[in-house]
Amino acid sequence: MGGTDIKAGLVDARGTVLGMRRVPTPLDPARPGEAVLDRLAELKAELASEFPEAPAKAAGIIVPGIVDSVAGVGIYSANLGWRNFPFKAEAEKRLGIPVAFDHDVRSAAAVEHSFGGSKEFNDVVVMVVGTGIAAAVFSGGKAVTAGGFAGELGHAQVPDPDAAPGATGSTILEAVGSAGAIAKRYHRASGNTVDGARGVLLRAGAGDSVAARVWDDAVDALAFTICQCVNIIGTEAVVIGGGLAEAGDELLEPLRKRVDGILDFQRRPQLIRAQLGQDAGLLGAALNARAVLGGAQ
Amino acid sequence: MGGTDIKAGLVDARGTVLGMRRVPTPLDPARPGEAVLDRLAELKAELASEFPEAPAKAAGIIVPGIVDSVAGVGIYSANLGWRNFPFKAEAEKRLGIPVAFDHDVRSAAAVEHSFGGSKEFNDVVVMVVGTGIAAAVFSGGKAVTAGGFAGELGHAQVPDPDAAPGATGSTILEAVGSAGAIAKRYHRASGNTVDGARGVLLRAGAGDSVAARVWDDAVDALAFTICQCVNIIGTEAVVIGGGLAEAGDELLEPLRKRVDGILDFQRRPQLIRAQLGQDAGLLGAALNARAVLGGAQ
Repeated sequence: MGGTDIKAGLVDARGTVLGMRRVPTPLDPARPGEAVLDRLAELKAELASEFPEAPAKAAGIIVPGIVDSVAGVGIYSANLGWRNFPFKAEAEKRLGIPVAFDHDVRSAAAVEHSFGGSKEFNDVVVMVVGTGIAAAVFSGGKAVTAGGFAGELGHAQVPDPDAAPGATGSTILEAVGSAGAIAKRYHRASGNTVDGARGVLLRAGAGDSVAARVWDDAVDALAFTICQCVNIIGTEAVVIGGGLAEAGDELLEPLRKRVDGILDFQRRPQLIRAQLGQDAGLLGAALNARAVLGGAQ
Repeated sequence: MGGTDIKAGLVDARGTVLGMRRVPTPLDPARPGEAVLDRLAELKAELASEFPEAPAKAAGIIVPGIVDSVAGVGIYSANLGWRNFPFKAEAEKRLGIPVAFDHDVRSAAAVEHSFGGSKEFNDVVVMVVGTGIAAAVFSGGKAVTAGGFAGELGHAQVPDPDAAPGATGSTILEAVGSAGAIAKRYHRASGNTVDGARGVLLRAGAGDSVAARVWDDAVDALAFTICQCVNIIGTEAVVIGGGLAEAGDELLEPLRKRVDGILDFQRRPQLIRAQLGQDAGLLGAALNARAVLGGAQ
């Protein structure tokens, strides 16, 4: 479930997705949690009548924001509007089946980490760099959750490239290093409108110095945060997904160089492009649901 | 074992330390590991003749630097001079008893975390702020080691208060936020010599604006790094020990305020003064040794 759309489907024992659909997320400021649950109950009924031979045995629901998956509570979501909503308990009431409730990026990242390029590493950060920046952190092979408060890399402080001369200002990673920020900062600095971060990268390649500076600022900011992870928790691999990862080596090569320049005696982290893409979330939710059933379904 | 002294003693089943002594650390650039092991063998023989009724059953050795406690290898120590020295295996040969080999601050921090003010928390960072800055990181109640590479908070990047005007420079936490850096930066800025960080704090209290700025810079840098921990791994408590923690609330109060100013929706970490002081290292080493024997000795 995202701030714009809900993607839903039935996932069978082999991981095949049946009847996948995408519907707008109902946003009701007065009852934000209840409104989406009503929609989920409708989706479940639709899928049940479409696939009468395959009734859902459990539901996996994943959402953005701060999620306490142990307590089953949506602590906070800026986009969806709830605070401390007992999502798991309420969803089980409406849907009548066991519910696994978890964080969207952490769930997708667990799939990426299990099946993607970082599976040989124990100390891993998976960053999803798109309009914003979300992340999942693994330490010693286990997800670090801290009651839902871990992985807020998008809100970690970085040096502010727009600080007033002489000031040592800082801002947050999301405001410089996200795909959204790259497009916005380029537009603000040049007056030109481009097709997102990809457009900025194209212009930089064509010799636009403002575009090149905005792209470099993003690389600097991402490298800064990656190095914080290395120093604090000894991160040995960073998987980068989301829209910005589509730049591939045009992102990863300068990023590796910048990380190498910041670090001293520390171990250099592998920087790896995510492999699973858009479906990792749905698969993660399905694996969460399967775990609720004891893993044997 | 530190860069200056080795502290050694026999620790009995109740945790009482017998025959504690402090001897200079032998520094031999040609054979840095072997030289200290020779000294350890002498210390063991001394203690054995002094306490013939209490022969050592195991040894706990803790050292600074990058330590792979699982492999028993001292990967790197700037102060002691070794690289990839197989400490545990070599020490067991010389001492003839099982050896637990681990990191000094992580071992002391584990004791601090088990018995000190943070024991009720699962996601904790213990920082030792003295001449340098070392740290131990706990996530979900477990020590984060990452093969010895975690906890390098002293080398994490922070905004550089001495950056040239207009530049967004960064430096490392240890260069601004350590007790050593506070004394050094004050001396550099004022020309005055003071009695360490404590002297700078006293001068700041007496109206010396240079001292106040240097102290504030240190608080800013420490707060910056603490907030990185909060955002990356959801740290809920930070224990501060080492020489700088002797400032007590004169350090913790402005630090809480600064951390609160940086964070947004995130959970505020508890900032707690370490309780165990100088002996935590020796106790940590003893507990490591006891664990090697299966915990029952």
